[in-house]
Parts: sequence; C-alpha cells; structure tokens
Amino acid sequence: MSILAVGTVALDDIETPFGAQTDVLGGSAMYTTLTARYFVEPVRLVAVVGRDFPDRYLQVLRDGKVDLEGLAVDPEGETFSWSGRYHYDLNDRDTLFTHLNVLETFDPVIPDAYRDSRIVCLGNLEPGIQRRVLEQVDRPELVVCDTMNFWIDHTLDSLLETLKVIDCLIINDAEARQLADEPNLVIAARRIREMGPRILVIKKGEHGAMLFIDDTIFVAPAFPLEDIQDPTGAGDTFMGGFAGYLAREERLDAECLKRAVIFGSAMASFVVESFGPERLLNLDDAQIHARIQAFRDLSTIPALVPSGISS
Amino acid sequence: MSILAVGTVALDDIETPFGAQTDVLGGSAMYTTLTARYFVEPVRLVAVVGRDFPDRYLQVLRDGKVDLEGLAVDPEGETFSWSGRYHYDLNDRDTLFTHLNVLETFDPVIPDAYRDSRIVCLGNLEPGIQRRVLEQVDRPELVVCDTMNFWIDHTLDSLLETLKVIDCLIINDAEARQLADEPNLVIAARRIREMGPRILVIKKGEHGAMLFIDDTIFVAPAFPLEDIQDPTGAGDTFMGGFAGYLAREERLDAECLKRAVIFGSAMASFVVESFGPERLLNLDDAQIHARIQAFRDLSTIPALVPSGISS
Repeated sequence: MSILAVGTVALDDIETPFGAQTDVLGGSAMYTTLTARYFVEPVRLVAVVGRDFPDRYLQVLRDGKVDLEGLAVDPEGETFSWSGRYHYDLNDRDTLFTHLNVLETFDPVIPDAYRDSRIVCLGNLEPGIQRRVLEQVDRPELVVCDTMNFWIDHTLDSLLETLKVIDCLIINDAEARQLADEPNLVIAARRIREMGPRILVIKKGEHGAMLFIDDTIFVAPAFPLEDIQDPTGAGDTFMGGFAGYLAREERLDAECLKRAVIFGSAMASFVVESFGPERLLNLDDAQIHARIQAFRDLSTIPALVPSGISS
Repeated sequence: MSILAVGTVALDDIETPFGAQTDVLGGSAMYTTLTARYFVEPVRLVAVVGRDFPDRYLQVLRDGKVDLEGLAVDPEGETFSWSGRYHYDLNDRDTLFTHLNVLETFDPVIPDAYRDSRIVCLGNLEPGIQRRVLEQVDRPELVVCDTMNFWIDHTLDSLLETLKVIDCLIINDAEARQLADEPNLVIAARRIREMGPRILVIKKGEHGAMLFIDDTIFVAPAFPLEDIQDPTGAGDTFMGGFAGYLAREERLDAECLKRAVIFGSAMASFVVESFGPERLLNLDDAQIHARIQAFRDLSTIPALVPSGISS
C-alpha cells in the first residue's frame, strides 16, 4: 500500500542533558516518512520548506527513497524552525521558540500522483488544513491523524470536525485526558472514539502505548532504554512505523493493528537513541526484527507448565 | 509454602470522589494476608492493634483463614489510624492524618510457630524493625519488602542495611527514582539492585509494573478499569498476590516471577473496585483466572501469520 504523510519538515535547535545541536533536520512528516520507508514503497511527502533548507537534507530524504514531488520549496521564506530544551528526566521539555516562517501560509497541495494513496498520515497541523488534505485524495483505506493540546485549546470545533473524518487518532495521554475532559484513560478513550475515530492509540512515553479498537484494548510496553539522547520526533516516528507496517501487511484488523503498535514503538525506541533522525538513516531489517523480538520478550506472560494451576 | 506478613492493621478514614467511609479495615499486613490466602495456607500475620479494634474485623481475618497468633492486641492504646483523601484523577492523594497510636511502640514478636515461614513479606515499616523481623525467623526462601519515601528521606542508612538482607524490593516508580537518585527507571533499577535486592518490582499505578531479575526485564500492564472506587491498599494487595502465587508454585525462577507480577496486578485490580478490602472478601478462583486471562489478552502481541514477514 502507498503512504502519504502530510506535515512539517523543519530545522530544529535541540538541547538535551547530553548535548545541543542547531539546524537539525526535523518535522513530523520527515520523521514519519523516513520511518515508513523501511516497510513500504512509495512513501509520499507533502510539506513546505523555505529557501534556506539545505540541499544535503533534501538528499537525506531522497536517499531514504521518500517521494519528494509534494515537497514545496517557498523561495519567499525561511523553513519552519522549532527549538526545545529537554530536562534532566527527558519527560518534560520547554519550547524555546517556534518560528512558523513558511508554515504560516502553508496550504498543502496534493500532487495528482498522490491522490490514490491508500494510507494518509496527517501530522500535527491546524485541523482545517488536515481536512483540506482529505478533500484532495481519493478515498484512502486508512486516515491516521495526530494533534496536540494547542488545537484542543484554540480550535476545538475544527478539531472535532476533523475527528469525524479520520479512522485513527494517535495522541498522548495528557492530550487524551484533555480532549475527553476525563482523567480515566479508559473512559477518555471511549469518549474520543465517540467523537469519530474508530481506532485510537494513546502514547504514554516511557510507559508505552494503548490501542483501542472495537471492544479490544491492547497495551504495549515502552522499550526500556538506559541511554536516551533526544526524544524529538518519537511520536512522529511511531506513526511512521505504525502506518508503514499496516501498509506492508495490507491488513487493518485488530491483530495487525496490535503488531503495528509494536512496530511503531520499536521504531520510536530507535530514534531516541541519537539526535534528530540520525538513527533512522541506517537501520536494517535484522535490527528492527531483533527489537520486535525484544518487545515480545519484555511483555510475554509465560504460559503455565501443564502440571500447574490453570492460566 | 507458608507466608508470613508483617506490617500494619489499621482503621482508615477514606475519601474518594465516589464517597467517604470511616473506620474502614486497613493496613498493609491486612491487605497482604487477605490476598495471599487465595493462593496458599497458612498465611501468618504479625501486627498490632489497639483496644478499640472491632471484633467484627478480627472475624473478617479469621473467616479469611488468616493465622492470627501473631496479631498482638495492645490494651493500653488505640489502633493505628490513617486518613487519606483521593483527588479527582485518583493518582494523587492527601494524607489527612496519621495517628500511629499502638504502632509507636510496635516491636514485632514473631511466634515460634512462625519461624519456619518460607516467604516473609515485610510491609512498609521502619527499616530497623523490618530487620528485627528477619532476625526472628529461620532462613526463609524469599524475603519481599516494601518501603516508602518517608524512610528514604529520614532513615536512609537503616534502609540501606535492610536492602542488603532482602531478596525482593517492591516500590513505586517515584520511590525508585528517589532511592537511586536517577530519573531513568532502567538505570535506577540497576542501582537499586546493586544495593542488595536480587529482584526488584517497580509499581507504576495505572501504567502497570516492571520486574527486574538477573538480565530480564518484564513489563506488566495495569488492568484498564473504568470504575475505580478506592485505590487504598493496591500496593499491599499486589504484594499478597505476588508472594501468594510464588508460595503456591514453590518456584522462584524468572518465568514464575513474571506470572507472580501478573497475579499481583490482577489482585490489585480487584481491590480498587470497592472501598477498603471489601472486594478481597468474596473472590473465587474463576474470577481470578478470568482476570489473569484478561491480562494475557491485553498484552499478548499476536504472532505473525506464517506467510507474513518474520516476527
């Protein structure tokens, strides 16, 4: 299955307790596409960059076999730029600046060749823009969508419209509680799915992720990492692994969705091991499958020996 | 295997968003023993209560087949009493009062008949008292220990002594981070195990629990409950299910410990469904095994169909 990812491509300034880097290749659509391409081709990107966007970063995407027909270069402006500082425990970060730049007027135009994309990944964007993407594609089999607290706070009505036309929402636990106005995640998940999305994934950072589909709840662990260099892009990478795996399997049933959550989690566990997308540039199938096996080892409840008490 | 649980038996005043009750049967050793008795006999209790302790609560413990030879009744004082108020999200609570009462002079005396206990559960008590318990028993196969931030803050040296003589520490994630002075839980777990305990369980509330044994990490989900009435005693109930299951299986290997974490989690998921220990009074094997199966359903990563890509 083909994948289309719409979102941002950015230049990030990142500070963590382990270092600081400026003008790091960033953006939701970048992380999602550079991840999904491990699973399927073609992976199509729709985003905008400015006149300052380095050729070497274009080459990184091309080397990753990302289809760049949909990447607009705006000669009038600078690339979207975000700067964040992570704290000691890496679970919290301060945004130091957000320069929208060319993103301010971004209105994604989907190339004709992309209209038939079977899976559409809507990165965190203004909810109205997310809907305009969907108006430009033929009926995809799966629309996966991210959002954030900013849109819940400021454009809730528009977000609720978007929720009605997507299949799968991927948000973090704080956003889920805020969107549902409910502290209990199970109740919050039910309320959010009543808003539209048939499938809900709640990301919980170091505590893993939860999948809600029909009457099924699936809980995936996070991979226990001792050495996290940079959490930037973990969520977008999760989306790339999740959607990429589904595209490869060409199945959307609960079993496949559960595995997709594990593949998303596995890819996210790689990306945080280095600054920016570095770790996504040189993975191979053996590494990915070893990590998947590690997730199985981590969460498998051993079967009882036959002589023991049942279950 | 026999189990001995040393800790508190209390009268609790509990407020949650769903109601308030006074003089609820409480205390760590109460929750642990009333849970462990579902798995094994005998379950031995060492604690102290005051002259005000109601006969009907003694009867609850007797009906639960808890061996009360080690329960001292101090005619000079009142029973230890704790009062807590849970907030809207149930993850946080305020302690309204802690009346130590007879606990102030509690120095547990282990009856001779208890010396041969094979598993010893040390509830949250002053670390020096925990060690004095161990001096009064023959060499048990497993010593499981709880502690809390208060002892880390105020009696760290004594706690470090206790950690050297126990096999398994069960604490929550905030306590683990504090004890190891390290935000990363994997690193924190390593440091804590270097302090003594060969086995470490980190409880994460709604995010489940982690087991560390040798080079193995196991991640257990929490049971997704929509209706939590009262979180009091969940940790002590976890210990009762964990230790009780190990006592029944008479095995302490990694596979059995993983299942013990699930049994502990399952029992904790029951106790929070009602106020105080109410839910522990009338469970049956079928209910417990159904919940264990629910944990399996929740966390099992489906195997790939043979035709698909590996893992």
